Parts: sequence; structure tokens; C-alpha cells
Amino acid sequence: MSGSLVIVGTGPGRAELMTPATAAALQCATDLVGYGPYLERIPPAQGQFRHPSDNRVELERARLALSLAAEGKRVVVVSGGDPGVFAMAAAVFEAVETGDPAWASLDIRVEPGVTAMLAAAAEVGAPLGGDFCAISLSDNLKSWTTIEKRLTAAADADFVIALYNPASKARPHQLGEAFALLRTKKSADTPVLFVRAAGTAQARVVRSMLGTADALQADMRTLVIVGASTTRSVGRWVYTPRSER
Amino acid sequence: MSGSLVIVGTGPGRAELMTPATAAALQCATDLVGYGPYLERIPPAQGQFRHPSDNRVELERARLALSLAAEGKRVVVVSGGDPGVFAMAAAVFEAVETGDPAWASLDIRVEPGVTAMLAAAAEVGAPLGGDFCAISLSDNLKSWTTIEKRLTAAADADFVIALYNPASKARPHQLGEAFALLRTKKSADTPVLFVRAAGTAQARVVRSMLGTADALQADMRTLVIVGASTTRSVGRWVYTPRSER
Repeated sequence: MSGSLVIVGTGPGRAELMTPATAAALQCATDLVGYGPYLERIPPAQGQFRHPSDNRVELERARLALSLAAEGKRVVVVSGGDPGVFAMAAAVFEAVETGDPAWASLDIRVEPGVTAMLAAAAEVGAPLGGDFCAISLSDNLKSWTTIEKRLTAAADADFVIALYNPASKARPHQLGEAFALLRTKKSADTPVLFVRAAGTAQARVVRSMLGTADALQADMRTLVIVGASTTRSVGRWVYTPRSER
Repeated sequence: MSGSLVIVGTGPGRAELMTPATAAALQCATDLVGYGPYLERIPPAQGQFRHPSDNRVELERARLALSLAAEGKRVVVVSGGDPGVFAMAAAVFEAVETGDPAWASLDIRVEPGVTAMLAAAAEVGAPLGGDFCAISLSDNLKSWTTIEKRLTAAADADFVIALYNPASKARPHQLGEAFALLRTKKSADTPVLFVRAAGTAQARVVRSMLGTADALQADMRTLVIVGASTTRSVGRWVYTPRSER
């Protein structure tokens, strides 16, 4: 059994933001496993099998990938962004923990990538220049109470806040609720950035302020950044200084 | 005046983890500005000037880069990792804000990169699989009180915690103080990961637990990850499940 499993992230979208290590892993794979739209971004390679799947079936997808590797295939599990940030790597290790004991001795590797908040920050300047946190607003796998607790802590301790999965068709109201909570804790003139399709040719930035930020600006492809008390504008840029002033 | 300034991060170290967009920017530059050891990693290009500087002179370095761009040079400011995370991008925008007003209309661009915590996480599995925060332990630019407040909030809200700049010769005791604080808030068996030189051929991982973690394991090249309550091991891997269980 000489199979292997590499878990990669293709970055925010543009090929120029995918690491060469990830490109090489994709090239050498016999089998690609991932959410359909992510697989479609990858140029075809001769004799390579693709196993596209729907969204929200991460564990099933992880088990398929592990089974193929156990059969001797060179499998690559494809996420966007970085595979370790709200993506497939955790699902693969969860499948290892709960699955066939032989999977624990497979040759598994994780290749890091450029996660969405870094690409979003780069589009607007340097809003993550101080201490920051990343919170997924999806309550598919955790309770809204937990999310509220983390938003509150992040506001009280003056972290810059990066919000992943701010909205979807199934969850249209949560970003609005998050803004309402943050408004009780933070100044109305705190910068809020909506960055859609960061790191692609279609990138679009909407600059707003917490007091007036409209949650409807966000969709599934948007990353939202809420500034710290020190986050400020200079010309068309927004940045958080390294110091506390 | 047709100069430009691109702020890049070369990733954690291995050339295979630098994005093609950053490699292209480096290739086209007339002038590279950055901390000496980061510049040394970059292959020489004909006719290109290098302006290496010491550590801890970020604002001076940013002003030099902006002056060169204002003179018409194609300048690249070089950080390791991602330029927006505890690196040069915030310093450049701070220099724009406080410097020559003409600098605000310069052609400035930020290229994202793979920041240290993503490379460190990939070395050990998927410890950043849930909500997480990034805190720099350096108190050169902020007070230790602020750092303690953020560590406390991160522990109370059960974030995974990535600690940048955990130790230096000038600050040997801070990581130990951070661990002592976290021990009052979190379980003694919380996974603690010391990842040195992540994303390079010299990468070294020390797995520990909060109750017994030895701060002396960390130096300037180490990234420390402190797990959430759900962070766990499976075989040689450590991961944080996406759910709260």
C-alpha cells in the first residue's frame, strides 16, 4: 500500500496566488477529491480522476479520499484558500479518528495556502496589522450562542475580527445579528470592510462603518473585516497600526 | 512619476511556498527593501538594488521604500510570511499617513502570502480548524496589559490561539507568563504545539500540553499554537474539529 493523501488549498482564486507546492501536488495526483467548483478551477491532467462533490458533505468526501489513498492512489483533497482554515483538513483528520484504524498510518500531508482573510486584507491595505481573530459565522456545526460569546470577547479585547461564511441563502440574518451585537460594544465609526472575491480579477471592496454597515452587502463569497479601535484610513487604504495608538 | 511599491511576503521560507505573484513582483523590481535575512533568500536579479536593513526599524524602512517609489523606482518591500500579519504592510501605511502627502497617491499594492501560523498548522495537522486568534507576544509596540487582556479573552471564549513572536533575547520571560495566565483558564491537558521553522526543510515540531509546556522550547523562529478545549490528537496529528464536540 503506497498511496498518499495531500490536503491542499488553491488560494483565493487567481492561479498566481496558488503556491508551487500545491500546483506540484495537483500535477502528481491520480485522484482529486473536492467541492465541484474548486475542482473546476484546476487545469486537467492526463489520466487523472476527479471526484467532485456537493458542498456540506465534508466528512463523506474525506472518507472517500482516505479510501482511495488506502487503495494505493495518490489522492489530493482540494479546498480553496488554506486547507486548515474553515476547510477540508480538519474534516480529513476527523474521518481518520472515526474511521478505519489503518487510515491513521497512511502517508498524509497538508500544504498551506493563502486563506481568504489575507487576500481580503491585501485588497484594502493592512487591516490585520494588529492582533486579530477569525470567526466562522456558520452555525451548521456550532451554536449561535458560541458565536455570540466569541464576538463579544473579540470586541471586548479589541481584536480585529475577520468573519468567514458571513451569509448564505440558508442563513440570511446572522451577519445583521453579529453587527447588532458588535454595535453594543464598539464605536459606530469602526471601519467595516466587505471584500468579495478577494484575490481574483472580480474583487470588489465596499468600505463601511459599523454604525451603518449593511449586512446585505455580504454573500457566500464575501469576507467581512471589522476593525479594532485603532483601525483607520489613509487615502484609499485601511490599516491597523502595530502600536496601540 | 511612474514608480510603484509592492509589499510582498515570501512565505515561511521554502521557495515552493512563495506565490507566483510575489515571485513575479520580485523579478520586476528595480529596488528591494527589507530585513537583511529575508532579502538573502531571494535569488539575485541583474541590475536590481538591494537595501537591507536591521530588524526593528520598520518605519524607517517603509519611508525609504516610499521615497524610492516617489523617485520613479519599482520598489518591492519584502517581509517573510504574509506582509499584512505582524509584518511590513502596516508600517508602510503608517509611513504614508505620517509622511510626504504625495506618497498617498503612489501606486501601492499588497500581495498576500502564506503566514507562519498556516505553515505551522500544516506541519502538525489542522489545529486551526475552529475559530482562532493570532496574538503577537512582543510588547515593543503595545503594553503587556493589552496582551494579557487578549489572552484572557481568547481563553474565556475558547479560541485556538496562535502566538507570534513568542520569545526573543530581549524578552525571554513573556511566553512563560502567557502560559501561566492560560493555565488559570484552560485545562492542563490542552495541546500546545511549538513549531520551529515551519514550512522549511528544518521544520521541527514539539508537542506538549499546557500543564507542562516549557516556554524555553520557543525562540524567535518558533510559532506556538495553544489548542481550544476541543483540540485533540489522532495518531501523530493534532486537529481542532469543526464542531463543538
